[in-house]
Parts: sequence; C-alpha cells; structure tokens
Amino acid sequence: MRISNLFTKTSKNIPSDEVSKNAQLLMRAGFVHKVMAGVYAYAPLGLRVLEKIKQIVREEMDSVGGQELIMSSLQKKETWETTGRWDDKAVDIWFKSKLKDGTEVGFAWSHEEAIIEMLKQYLESYKDLPMNVYQFQNKFRNELRSKSGIIRGREFVMKDMYSCSLDEEQHDKFYDDTIKAYNRVFERLGIGSDTYMTFASGGAFTQFSHEFQTICEAGEDTIYIHRQKNIAINEEVMDDASLANLGIKREELEKVKSAEVGNIFNFGTKKSEDMNFAYTNKEGKKQFVFLGSYGIGITRLMGVIVEKFSDEKGLVWPANIAPFKVYLVRIGGEAAVVSADKLYDELTGAGIEVIYDDREAHPGQKFADSELMGIPYRVTVSDRMLETNEYELVERRDGQKMLLTHDQLLAKLN
Amino acid sequence: MRISNLFTKTSKNIPSDEVSKNAQLLMRAGFVHKVMAGVYAYAPLGLRVLEKIKQIVREEMDSVGGQELIMSSLQKKETWETTGRWDDKAVDIWFKSKLKDGTEVGFAWSHEEAIIEMLKQYLESYKDLPMNVYQFQNKFRNELRSKSGIIRGREFVMKDMYSCSLDEEQHDKFYDDTIKAYNRVFERLGIGSDTYMTFASGGAFTQFSHEFQTICEAGEDTIYIHRQKNIAINEEVMDDASLANLGIKREELEKVKSAEVGNIFNFGTKKSEDMNFAYTNKEGKKQFVFLGSYGIGITRLMGVIVEKFSDEKGLVWPANIAPFKVYLVRIGGEAAVVSADKLYDELTGAGIEVIYDDREAHPGQKFADSELMGIPYRVTVSDRMLETNEYELVERRDGQKMLLTHDQLLAKLN
Repeated sequence: MRISNLFTKTSKNIPSDEVSKNAQLLMRAGFVHKVMAGVYAYAPLGLRVLEKIKQIVREEMDSVGGQELIMSSLQKKETWETTGRWDDKAVDIWFKSKLKDGTEVGFAWSHEEAIIEMLKQYLESYKDLPMNVYQFQNKFRNELRSKSGIIRGREFVMKDMYSCSLDEEQHDKFYDDTIKAYNRVFERLGIGSDTYMTFASGGAFTQFSHEFQTICEAGEDTIYIHRQKNIAINEEVMDDASLANLGIKREELEKVKSAEVGNIFNFGTKKSEDMNFAYTNKEGKKQFVFLGSYGIGITRLMGVIVEKFSDEKGLVWPANIAPFKVYLVRIGGEAAVVSADKLYDELTGAGIEVIYDDREAHPGQKFADSELMGIPYRVTVSDRMLETNEYELVERRDGQKMLLTHDQLLAKLN
Repeated sequence: MRISNLFTKTSKNIPSDEVSKNAQLLMRAGFVHKVMAGVYAYAPLGLRVLEKIKQIVREEMDSVGGQELIMSSLQKKETWETTGRWDDKAVDIWFKSKLKDGTEVGFAWSHEEAIIEMLKQYLESYKDLPMNVYQFQNKFRNELRSKSGIIRGREFVMKDMYSCSLDEEQHDKFYDDTIKAYNRVFERLGIGSDTYMTFASGGAFTQFSHEFQTICEAGEDTIYIHRQKNIAINEEVMDDASLANLGIKREELEKVKSAEVGNIFNFGTKKSEDMNFAYTNKEGKKQFVFLGSYGIGITRLMGVIVEKFSDEKGLVWPANIAPFKVYLVRIGGEAAVVSADKLYDELTGAGIEVIYDDREAHPGQKFADSELMGIPYRVTVSDRMLETNEYELVERRDGQKMLLTHDQLLAKLN
C-alpha cells in the first residue's frame, strides 16, 4: 500500500484522557481511534494486525478440531436466567436494553449460556461427542473504569471455544490438547517465553482454573512464576496449601506483573445440569455433558504485544502479525522514484507486504514514521545509494543496519 | 469436512414462530440458529457462506480503492447529537443503554456520524482527497417487527462504505465507479440479471437516491422495472414527474416485488456542514467535504439468495458462495469406504472444498441432506458403481445426472 493512499496519519498528539501506553502509541501511529473510554475503532493498520492475530488463533483452534461459528450479541433474558446470570447482582457488567414491546434484552458479555442453548438443539447421542466450537465475537462489558487501553475494553474481541465431552477422561484429553494449541498461539505471536500457564481460582467445582499470563508491566494481575518448571501461580490463590498441592516452594518463585491473555476452564457437568444439556449414552441413559471453556482476548493480546515490545521510538511488531513486513522509504529525485516504484512492484509481486512511503516528505519524518508504526524492516532507496546500486535495510527490533545489493535484499526479505 | 465431525444436523422441524422461508430453510439445513425474532447465530455452514459473500464484496470495494477498517458498536450521544439523530423521535430504532455513571450510550444502527467524527481527525488538506473507507460491521436496529428471517434482522451484518471528495465532479466519478463495483458484486453472487439500479427517494439534497433492488417475492419493496433499459423505479417515487425526469413511460414498466440489497447515497455537503467536516483547498480556503455513503446488506443478501434459488428440496447455492463445492456420498461396504476416503483426500488435496457424508445412514437420507444443504455438486461412490469404475455426479441446480470416470470427474470439478 502506498502511504499517500492511507487516510490515517501519524501524530504527536494524543487525547489528554488517554493514560495507557498501548492506546497512546496505537493512536499516534494511526492504528486505532478512540471512541470513548474502553471503546476503540480499528483503522486499516490496526485491523490488519487484528486479523493476523485472529488467523493464527483460528489455525490453532482448527488444529484441535474446532468448528468456527458466530453467535449474536443480542441475548435474551430467559437464556441467562437458567444459570442465575441475568441478574445484575450476579453479573454487574451487563449492558441491557429493551425491545419496543418492553422485552428486556442484553448485549453479550460472554456467550457460554447462549452457545449451550444452541448446542442443545443438536446434541443427542454419545456418538455426537466429543465436539468443540469456537468463535471470534465482540463482547460488551460495562466496566466501571476502563483505563488500560485495548487491554481492558468495554467492547472487545474475544475468541471463545467450548468443548463438550462424554466424561472427564475425554474432557481431559481435549483440555491437554488445547493447552498445547494455546502454547503454539503464544509462541507464534512472539510472547511464548514470557507467557505462563498459571494456576488460578477454580470456582465451585475444581481447585484451580488455568490462566495464561504474560509478563507485562501494564498488566492488571500479579503472578508468581517458576521459571524452571515453566508454570506460575496467581496471587489470588497463593497460599501454603496451594504451593504444597503444586509441589513448589515459595522461594523458587518470582513475583511479576502480568496480563491474562487466555484462560481455560473446566465446568465439569455443573453448567450442563443447570441448563439440562445432556446426551444419551450407549446404555440409553441420559448423561450430562462434560464442559470446558477456553478464551483468548484477541484485542487484549494486541495491547499486550504493544506494551511488551514497543520502545521510545514507537511500536515494534513481531513479523507474524505486523501490518506490513516492509516499510519502503524513497529519498531523492526522479531516479529514486523510478527505482522505488520498481522495487515496490517487485516486492509486492513476490507476495511481500510493503507499505511504501511515497510522500514528498523529509527523510527524517519517513524514518520516524516507519519506527512509530513498528514495521519489521525498513528499506531505503536513495539517489546516493543508487550510484552504488545499494539499498539500506534496517531492522526495527534491534536497529541493525545493512547495505545490500538488490539480490541480497530479496534473499533477505523472501 | 466430514459430516460426522459437523455438530449441526439437518432437521424437518422448524420453530413454530418462524414464518420466513429463508430462515426456515437455513435452520432446517443447520446453517443458522434462531436466538430470537430478528436475531440469528451462524453455524459453521452459514458462516462459510457469509464469509464468502464478504470476500466478494471486499474484493470489489478494494478495487475502487476502499480502505477497510472497523468501527465500534458502542456509540456516544454527543456524536449523534450534532446531526439530531440521537433523538428517539428522529431515529426510532436505537438500542440504548447506560454506563455505570449514568452516561447514555447507543448501539450503532448506522456508522455515518461515527465514521465522519473519526475521519475529521485525519483529514486536513485537498491533498488528502479523494478517500474512501469501508467496513463489515454489525448493525443493531430495534425494529418493531421482524418476520423476514435474515432479510430484516434486529442484528445484522452490513458493508458500509463512505466516500470523501473535493467536489461534485470528484464525487460523481467515484459514485459511478461504485455503481460498476456493485454490479460486479451482484453478478458474482449470481443475482446480476435480477438486480436493478432503482431510483428511489433522494431526501433533502438530491432528487433521487439509488437503490439496488433484486426481484424477490419475499422482498418488502415494490418496484417498477424497465427490462430494456435495465433500470427500475421505486413505487415510493413513481409519479408522472419522476417518469418524465427519467425519460421512461409507465407502460414500459413491469411491477415486481423486490428486496433492497444495496443503496448508494449522495450526501452533498449537508452532513459535512452539520459536523464541520472540512478541508483546506489549494487557495487555503476551508471547504466542506463532499460525502457519499454506500451500503450492502450482507446477511440480507444471503437471505435473498436463499429465497430466490431454493426449491422444494431445499437450498440451492450459487457455486461462488456455496459452503462446499462438492457433497460426497458413499454407499455400501468396505470397498466404497476405501474408495470414497481416497476420493475425499484427492479432491481436498486439489483445493476443492468437499463435505463428505461419512455417516452410516440410509442413501436416501444422504441424498436428501445434500439437496437440503444446497451443495452445487453431489458425487456418489457406491459398491455397485465401483464395479464399472464410475462415479455419479448430480448438479443441484438442475438435477442433471452424469456417470463419469475418475478422470472425467476430476476434469469436471477442477
């Protein structure tokens, strides 16, 4: 894409009410637009990142047999009354409204009850199990405060998956497979080594639930990590009993700030019983479905990645999810224009995603924008370097600079 | 995909309160799930169709230089007060709710004001124009009644594009390009010859707006088509003055029921003036932006396509947007299983999308399901046909049956 065609612009100014680093940088670089506290629109650059994160998550959910669908945001009262979660006293983050005839409706802050209600229509026999479904869908949460940018929104994108199993054994196998799939997701997003499977509060029917927490100063959680064992424990369940149960010692742990980027949850048959979600087993007997739920905050992940990798110059995207791989800068007159145009066509023709700074602007501004946007590779074509048939390549992550011939450049970028 | 892995099932039963043909068929075939009147979830088969429709629209919007983004559903009051459209008396389909501190918020039924508010932040000079942006986003509309299935939802997916131009001349050029892009969309979706650019009520600043209306018995509009000139006129503006203006005679027209699948709208500078959306021209003078808006109802299009092509046996998808190209049926014992498994691997390996009915079910049920789901080609592998090394291919659209050799089959499907 040519920057002259991009409607967003980088800016030094940020809304005075925006306190979070991720939102400040994403706004300055033209990736997101703030609508109100906790509510952001995604401009083309931001949408590209979001879609790439979703695609990585999609591939890994598909790899464990997930079937993608999409539920509605509008929710009916009766669905959530079955589990007592319509009540504002039980769930205090509902956005609710009313149909013309006065019927109350809600906007989904979660889809657990809605998905189960739908699946009930199809599930009959043990032959239908195991089964698991997932979606990427907006969630609306009426948070009292929202000051963490896209890390905690009032409207945000989540991947939520739900597994239905015959029994605990079948459930456990899928649960373990999903842990592996989650690890692959975080690995591919470049935060694998800083993301810990974390023991957290389990609720009514299991001792622990599992969160995936990424070390992050801007995160809202505190966890204790065990680097050697590659696990962590959430502060909320950090006591001697839990430590003993997990077989770890307090002095082996390191306290860090973190952001919860994923969670997996074993419901057992509790929710199925509440909602009468059952199948017929081989013996013709009714059995409640064993349920699991598996979330990944897509927009939150994007925010965490910004917080972790950005530096004083701006954003730094892992290559897998950068909106473009190459930021092409041209400096100089007619010769540079011809050469840069040609290189742009050549690279895009080879399937490389390039954002081409074709503006009549000062080189310093072009360099600064390439850094602010966090594009992995900056390639410069200039009149001066054309004399020696060379291109400058700078890596955003470490600032490493190289002078390359045409063939070396293509080999490097392919 | 193997049907044994698909969680949805076909059904003869439909909810008693569902009166629309499109929703009835889509539910029976396992494409959508009804959440409440006018609110539907999309199961895997339905989501695949929806995504294919979106991709066709996306390609054509990109072809006129559209930049994809995504706005938020949550809307703030102040944005819509600038044009008087926050008021329930002006817009009677808002879903509204409140933040914890009592601040009113709305759920977007349109994004016009929101998009302009965002663009204002970036647009400065005449050099920034023309520019156009689009999105695929949910709209929430608190309709009094909702009885047309996915043709008129309380929650639905729309593609909305907005163009910003220097002046009327620049606007007109883009407007004409977009009409061509819209025609290509409807052509690719298989409804080109039944879709008419239709003159409709223009509002305050132009005599006519343009709708794209598709002939459809289940549609909510009535239009008068001029087959020779390939245009139509909406009943709402059908009078002698309009006819004279368009240079057509009443007796050349044919009255039909239709569904509005798209619309394009010339705002002139009216909305820009309301919202103070201006640029600086070459002479340094402030000028209001010339605005256009261009909608396509994505879920509605899917509903119209169902209504138009389905028959007594079920859905009939145009090949471009079918969830799968081939429905593979196997009939018989071990030999058929081995042969069908092999053919499934071969076809999917060649990039052909196949849904494989690997169930132990009666052939009649498999045939009926393939018809209900509306998959373009049904291929049958049976013990009997294996004796002569033949495959049966049936086209869903016309029921045409062929016995083909392996090579003929692959040639036909590739």
